[in-house]
Amino acid sequence: MKIILDAMGGDYAPKETVLGAIDALKLDKDIKLVLVGKSEAINKQLAECEYDKSRIEIIDAQDEISNDESPTMAIKTKKESSLVKAFEKLSSDEECEAFVSAGSTGAVLVGAFMKVGRIKGVSRPALAPVLPTLDGKGVVLCDCGANVDSKPINLLHFAIMASSYAQAMLGVENPRVGLLNNGVEAHKGNELSKEAYALLSENKDINFVGNCEARDMLSGDFEVVVADGFDGNIALKTAEGTAKLMLKLIKRGVYSSGLKAKLGALMLKPVFKDVQKALDYNAQGGACFLGVKKVVVKAHGASERGAISASILQAKGLAKNKVCEKIKAGIDASAINAED
Amino acid sequence: MKIILDAMGGDYAPKETVLGAIDALKLDKDIKLVLVGKSEAINKQLAECEYDKSRIEIIDAQDEISNDESPTMAIKTKKESSLVKAFEKLSSDEECEAFVSAGSTGAVLVGAFMKVGRIKGVSRPALAPVLPTLDGKGVVLCDCGANVDSKPINLLHFAIMASSYAQAMLGVENPRVGLLNNGVEAHKGNELSKEAYALLSENKDINFVGNCEARDMLSGDFEVVVADGFDGNIALKTAEGTAKLMLKLIKRGVYSSGLKAKLGALMLKPVFKDVQKALDYNAQGGACFLGVKKVVVKAHGASERGAISASILQAKGLAKNKVCEKIKAGIDASAINAED
Repeated sequence: MKIILDAMGGDYAPKETVLGAIDALKLDKDIKLVLVGKSEAINKQLAECEYDKSRIEIIDAQDEISNDESPTMAIKTKKESSLVKAFEKLSSDEECEAFVSAGSTGAVLVGAFMKVGRIKGVSRPALAPVLPTLDGKGVVLCDCGANVDSKPINLLHFAIMASSYAQAMLGVENPRVGLLNNGVEAHKGNELSKEAYALLSENKDINFVGNCEARDMLSGDFEVVVADGFDGNIALKTAEGTAKLMLKLIKRGVYSSGLKAKLGALMLKPVFKDVQKALDYNAQGGACFLGVKKVVVKAHGASERGAISASILQAKGLAKNKVCEKIKAGIDASAINAED
Repeated sequence: MKIILDAMGGDYAPKETVLGAIDALKLDKDIKLVLVGKSEAINKQLAECEYDKSRIEIIDAQDEISNDESPTMAIKTKKESSLVKAFEKLSSDEECEAFVSAGSTGAVLVGAFMKVGRIKGVSRPALAPVLPTLDGKGVVLCDCGANVDSKPINLLHFAIMASSYAQAMLGVENPRVGLLNNGVEAHKGNELSKEAYALLSENKDINFVGNCEARDMLSGDFEVVVADGFDGNIALKTAEGTAKLMLKLIKRGVYSSGLKAKLGALMLKPVFKDVQKALDYNAQGGACFLGVKKVVVKAHGASERGAISASILQAKGLAKNKVCEKIKAGIDASAINAED
């Protein structure tokens, strides 16, 4: 299977993207990679690595899309950018089943939407990261920022897509779906969540278990939590900010305490490392853009080689699991072809 | 100054509410308290305490409002409940300047709205807790759940009200106001946040500093963060859930590790306690219901005596600071009398 990698995307590209690609080739013998970006820079990095040359193809792209530009404008006008060239390859080459980028989230979403296209019947594709839970199994949050001002039908589609995704990613047969809401009772919420609750309850193809208060999102009681992208984004980033605040508070507490606390912190270091690792939702790969025709994985902008190779392997697993086909079947089965 | 306490509100009422009241009397010589609830139960608890009898008045109320009933229906029909009787006292007795309850949030909000009334010009009153920040100063989150499907004008009013509140609570002269959003750039957001951004930018009476991503809410870069109540609720509860998850992960890591980690944890115990204390946004008092004519403080349902006395002192401080008058002046100055 061929997977395309945006070699220029991310804070540490192309060095870490190329190194991550080489790692992925070593970890999985079944994949070939297409690296898109400035060929001289890619080749320079590759020259320092040992790898099977027949498993890497390079597509030269001299331009780049940054985080600061308008995604739509950039995708429309920057024909020579690594992202546009990558998406053109992805949509035209049947052998290429998946794409990974650590570049601008907006540009990846717009590019996938415009160049690869959405699955028929999907009202809106959505971005879905896997967040850590106490039991270590994880929860798919969908949508975390691709859509704002969603309609109820969008949230139903998020639930269907994320259920297929959770089956492939988390290995659960019948993922429990919760609706992010400001209370657990059925009548709670804003206009959107009340209407979405009704739609989700009626649907027999998903395992909707009710409202999910934000404090229970990471409890392990849900494998899927659906939300409008604005709300999902707030939940995702609040979790990030709070975890960071706590670690800083602990660190500061240790620094301002005596020798005993400092010794204690030293002895607890492996535990803190494990906790940080458990909370690092990027380590296991990226967020999947659900609802487009091929697998598109958005790795974190700050991805180093480990996160890049994890994202490549994740993309491969999703393609092998035929997650796009399953999403299509799920949407067809729900027999709802919503107007956007 | 007289402050009314709902002696029956909260998980540990009336024992902890009465004990909290006695503590507050000891801590502040300038206040008198009106305890509303089942007089025999209150008197039984009071009989075990030493206090100046001239500083406590009891209003008998034999009924209660629980968390499970419809707030509006309960306030309308339960005339003998502690909440309804308390609000009637609050609105009719000029000497009573503030009210504290650890009872049903919904019933407190509806009761305050219906029985005390909103300040003229305020489009919607809002619930505002103070959340912990890294610098220890705190940030006012407004609204955290009183309103869903807010309009832009509501968010402007939240900003004006919360600015007056932050001046009184945090002691900052010119509180920096952020708009909770899914990105920092001015063009980011959903329909509501884009329109609210424009309104907030135009207003000269507040110190609007731009969008606040959820990950920066607790950074200390803002004294006020405004949001629709649905979004604010998600942010508040995600922070709560994440903090809980982290403490559980650390605990579990310690238990499953060897003696060294266990010893380390023991040595770090004071630091963990400080961190938990810093994160406990209920310890310093309750959330204030901004925009009604008198000070209404909603203490956490699980409040023990310490949280009750803190909420009483907080209510006193707010009344002394004339926060309601300042909110009225702020709303008048902004010269906007929005239709709800």
